[in-house]
Amino acid sequence: MHIAIIGASGYTGGELMRLLANHPSAEVVCATSRKQGGLPVAAVHPHLRGLTDLAFQNIDVDDIDADFAFLAVPHTAAMKVAGALLERGIKTVDLSADYRLPKDIFEKVYGVPHEAYFDAPYGLPELHRDEVRDAAFVANPGCFPTGATLAVAPLAEHAHTIIFDSKTGVTGAGNTPSETTHYPNVGDTFSAYKWTKHRHLAEMKQEVAKLGSGARCYFTPHLLPVNRGILTTAHILLNEPMEQGEVEALYRKFYEDEFFVRYQKPTLAAVRGTNFCDVAVESEGDRVVAVSAIDNLVKGASGQAIQNMNIMCGFDETAGLRLAGMLP
Amino acid sequence: MHIAIIGASGYTGGELMRLLANHPSAEVVCATSRKQGGLPVAAVHPHLRGLTDLAFQNIDVDDIDADFAFLAVPHTAAMKVAGALLERGIKTVDLSADYRLPKDIFEKVYGVPHEAYFDAPYGLPELHRDEVRDAAFVANPGCFPTGATLAVAPLAEHAHTIIFDSKTGVTGAGNTPSETTHYPNVGDTFSAYKWTKHRHLAEMKQEVAKLGSGARCYFTPHLLPVNRGILTTAHILLNEPMEQGEVEALYRKFYEDEFFVRYQKPTLAAVRGTNFCDVAVESEGDRVVAVSAIDNLVKGASGQAIQNMNIMCGFDETAGLRLAGMLP
Amino acid sequence: MHIAIIGASGYTGGELMRLLANHPSAEVVCATSRKQGGLPVAAVHPHLRGLTDLAFQNIDVDDIDADFAFLAVPHTAAMKVAGALLERGIKTVDLSADYRLPKDIFEKVYGVPHEAYFDAPYGLPELHRDEVRDAAFVANPGCFPTGATLAVAPLAEHAHTIIFDSKTGVTGAGNTPSETTHYPNVGDTFSAYKWTKHRHLAEMKQEVAKLGSGARCYFTPHLLPVNRGILTTAHILLNEPMEQGEVEALYRKFYEDEFFVRYQKPTLAAVRGTNFCDVAVESEGDRVVAVSAIDNLVKGASGQAIQNMNIMCGFDETAGLRLAGMLP
Amino acid sequence: MHIAIIGASGYTGGELMRLLANHPSAEVVCATSRKQGGLPVAAVHPHLRGLTDLAFQNIDVDDIDADFAFLAVPHTAAMKVAGALLERGIKTVDLSADYRLPKDIFEKVYGVPHEAYFDAPYGLPELHRDEVRDAAFVANPGCFPTGATLAVAPLAEHAHTIIFDSKTGVTGAGNTPSETTHYPNVGDTFSAYKWTKHRHLAEMKQEVAKLGSGARCYFTPHLLPVNRGILTTAHILLNEPMEQGEVEALYRKFYEDEFFVRYQKPTLAAVRGTNFCDVAVESEGDRVVAVSAIDNLVKGASGQAIQNMNIMCGFDETAGLRLAGMLP
Repeated sequence: MHIAIIGASGYTGGELMRLLANHPSAEVVCATSRKQGGLPVAAVHPHLRGLTDLAFQNIDVDDIDADFAFLAVPHTAAMKVAGALLERGIKTVDLSADYRLPKDIFEKVYGVPHEAYFDAPYGLPELHRDEVRDAAFVANPGCFPTGATLAVAPLAEHAHTIIFDSKTGVTGAGNTPSETTHYPNVGDTFSAYKWTKHRHLAEMKQEVAKLGSGARCYFTPHLLPVNRGILTTAHILLNEPMEQGEVEALYRKFYEDEFFVRYQKPTLAAVRGTNFCDVAVESEGDRVVAVSAIDNLVKGASGQAIQNMNIMCGFDETAGLRLAGMLP
Repeated sequence: MHIAIIGASGYTGGELMRLLANHPSAEVVCATSRKQGGLPVAAVHPHLRGLTDLAFQNIDVDDIDADFAFLAVPHTAAMKVAGALLERGIKTVDLSADYRLPKDIFEKVYGVPHEAYFDAPYGLPELHRDEVRDAAFVANPGCFPTGATLAVAPLAEHAHTIIFDSKTGVTGAGNTPSETTHYPNVGDTFSAYKWTKHRHLAEMKQEVAKLGSGARCYFTPHLLPVNRGILTTAHILLNEPMEQGEVEALYRKFYEDEFFVRYQKPTLAAVRGTNFCDVAVESEGDRVVAVSAIDNLVKGASGQAIQNMNIMCGFDETAGLRLAGMLP
Repeated sequence: MHIAIIGASGYTGGELMRLLANHPSAEVVCATSRKQGGLPVAAVHPHLRGLTDLAFQNIDVDDIDADFAFLAVPHTAAMKVAGALLERGIKTVDLSADYRLPKDIFEKVYGVPHEAYFDAPYGLPELHRDEVRDAAFVANPGCFPTGATLAVAPLAEHAHTIIFDSKTGVTGAGNTPSETTHYPNVGDTFSAYKWTKHRHLAEMKQEVAKLGSGARCYFTPHLLPVNRGILTTAHILLNEPMEQGEVEALYRKFYEDEFFVRYQKPTLAAVRGTNFCDVAVESEGDRVVAVSAIDNLVKGASGQAIQNMNIMCGFDETAGLRLAGMLP
Repeated sequence: MHIAIIGASGYTGGELMRLLANHPSAEVVCATSRKQGGLPVAAVHPHLRGLTDLAFQNIDVDDIDADFAFLAVPHTAAMKVAGALLERGIKTVDLSADYRLPKDIFEKVYGVPHEAYFDAPYGLPELHRDEVRDAAFVANPGCFPTGATLAVAPLAEHAHTIIFDSKTGVTGAGNTPSETTHYPNVGDTFSAYKWTKHRHLAEMKQEVAKLGSGARCYFTPHLLPVNRGILTTAHILLNEPMEQGEVEALYRKFYEDEFFVRYQKPTLAAVRGTNFCDVAVESEGDRVVAVSAIDNLVKGASGQAIQNMNIMCGFDETAGLRLAGMLP
């Protein structure tokens, strides 16, 4: 199957190429970039030297010749081309935020009108696999909502309050230098940001509600001095106290058939570079601490996008994604 | 004034010596160490070379000749010598956990009998300055409880639930190599530990209760890939919603006369190496996020111990502690 | 082909398992460990959970049932079992230092008698592929010598003096906690160690001499606050000045058929997790700076061991090793 | 004494303010900034909150009212105002590169004409204290040349070749975000830059020559994933072999009266935040490895500038600079 990556010079574009290089049924034939058009991919992604001979193309969506597309562009950029891809019959996973939320909520949260709205499945396969299977266009979840939702899904209906305290690596901010990503502002330090107002909260609320939970949700993210990974500590306040054994059994049962969700003590290192989400829980009666770890660029973006592609195209869901993390 | 540091070869001992090297009224004359007796202090603390000619002494408390003592020893070691110091009239700040809690709670939390209990003020000067002023022996607070308590003190009485989500640097684990502190287990990764059962929770509950709050308290610590610092994110659920302006005014008022508590966006970098605690708050109605940042070895240990000494001895409370952080 | 990994609980054992999990023709059937015998592999290597169901076995070499073995044990431990493996017809790559040097030099450098010496090819395939192909037992090179030798091989014969200034990640020190690997002794700092006396210098001298060079060789390693990777800066003093174009052409020609050696600006990030060695050169007339980057656990150990296995067994030399690095 | 800092919003400006906050005889009364004029200093340097009430002023040099000035501006900016300061009788230390080199070499190395050249002492007090004492204007050395020169000064005359292999923290690149300082390009990686052509080499050659040495000098810098510090490994090739004892004695003798140069194993941690330069040597006969460690922002910039001010003004040379490093 021929793959096009639209917006391939960023981190998620690079990850798509890294992971697809080992996919048995998919081959990247087109990598677009507005800024890097003409440059060899390896000039921007030196880790791919020797593994791809592609050059970036600065071309329009109408000129792309592929069977499947990934939209690895910023929010509001995806909505400009999504329709054209669908009309041409190119199945697509959109890594942007443009189709993750209902139109009105999107417009409120992102503060822009949505020019080309349509419904799309929310591509968290562990919760919405059947919808993904039948779709021609899938909205890939945000990085924080992926880890947060998987951390609480088995227990959400038993909670009245959920506080997501997340800690992310710097690649979540993209590859454009800024004050936020300036090394001396991150290295050997730590801080919270967007303490109560991060846009990803809307996705978390949506998914928790879909799980039949009436829990109030809160979210505070922090910036870690590491490149990759999100560890989410979910503080779950229960309607009724539950014992450790009961809670743990719920989790093990909920995820027993999920290849990419592992029940073990989460650390960023064990999932680094992989599509795994490690989760575990500890109950102290009325509060349960549920922790999840993902690689924000893989399960939180490009890996999950490939997982969705695999489902949409009838491939083994784990094709190209059976990599072990790099630990240490 | 002549100072003895009992247990001077560890991190808190080193910090006491670093900070006291610039104290106008105090001079370290005795630095004890069981293991390093006879070695120059600078052989263990190379950053102090040129600033001290002391050598470690392997001596008993009875042989110490000093006006003031710091106990920088592990818990259960302090209780073995505290009485002797008091009998000899040597004012003392104890950095261990031995006198921070009521006897019964100490014994339950630490799982050991207390051999030599007496009451001592809890040396968090911003809350208990008057008790410290009159004391001959002060229990220096734990590192997590210091940052956690200062983060919520102005608002505690308005809360029904407080969840402390703390992130600490590695020096909190001391200078003895272990699996926990092995670089490849910490570098470029992140994880939670003692998710519901950290012993410092007892101090937090004690201080929140003293503030007249009936809030339930929960605590989950995490290990950061940095050497120093604790950032505590306190998720405070209020009895009644409060606006941002009201909450912020409470904090500014509460700490307006406190030199070491600054109202500004907390980061580990801005307090690194200093006795400052930076705090700020953000309200979203029924939840307030209060964040504090301290250096675990300074405001969380040795700096606060010197602050207590200054109060106990009638010195300017900031003597030796007016250092700016090292940023970046 | 059935693989046994002898000493599988350490970092190089874990890397062998991580990489072999994606090998098309090899399957690990036995992972031995003296200390962890009986434990699931995933209990020690959590990144492998879901990818292997093996448990560590505490068994003797005589009881191993496999076609091929990797010795991932410390020096002096390999010599105790190498003979038995050979006698049983099990082809072997030895990751220890025991067979990399002539007997007399080994005994001098390592300060121990060699109990069971025999000649073995030095498994740096880019220089000794033919010897490796025919061998039943190959000595896998040290991590520093791999990067250092590849950095200078094309130019060695033109040099009179070569100074290797290397910087390594912490995993080179193994997975046993020590003062050296204690996070606060490494994080946010940097230092040189074994300034003139590192044992790997003997391998570097050996390989430079084999290249027909009479250059004097010097070596100083440093410890980086990173987990993985060795960057070697080789300062090459030439017999006769050479222009940049000439030097660069030499390198490009020398490595043009080598999949695992890429001519591009070396950084640790671009080779992290991979078997690549990135090299480049810059001439200023009589001095050439040649820099190489490898992952110490992959091209510097387990990846190169699998590369050797592939050659010894007639597999595609890159089988299981076509992974892209994880950048960033 | 009233101090003006011209260009106070950058890292070296912040360090000048941090260190002068503890100086017994100097008070910063004016901190200029083109961009931040009007803002409180603590808004840009949050670590200084509570220690200074100054605001940045966007004023011309002619309007500065001070006894002493520090020029903490980029190269070519200093030459525009140096003359005016001198005419007004304001003693000055210039932290830029504008007066470190002879006019012709400056113009060649920096590729710009020098508009306002005059001779100024090179402010490395350990080598040029007498010239500094009598000067009204001192050129503060570059960060790399400070560490490099102090590493080899005692031995330079015995060398025929010196290769400086330096490793620096990221703050050396200043506080403006760029590709170079983007966290994911630095964190958990390592690389060389300007392999043969860094401009600081000219200062190193100048100082080595002044020491009476005919040694050829080479220089390759590298970028470390740390905020502060430069470790320089000087590979010194000797005219005649020298024993360890002889070399070490040379160093101890050379620096025996220097408060800021300590003979001990150099690490970045032990000098972090301080004006110390730690040095040590190891001989293997014809090569000596000399290593130095400094904090690039202190001994490599602002601390040395204050040291020069102390000498120029007749203060104790260590005034304001007796701080211990922060280890760990």
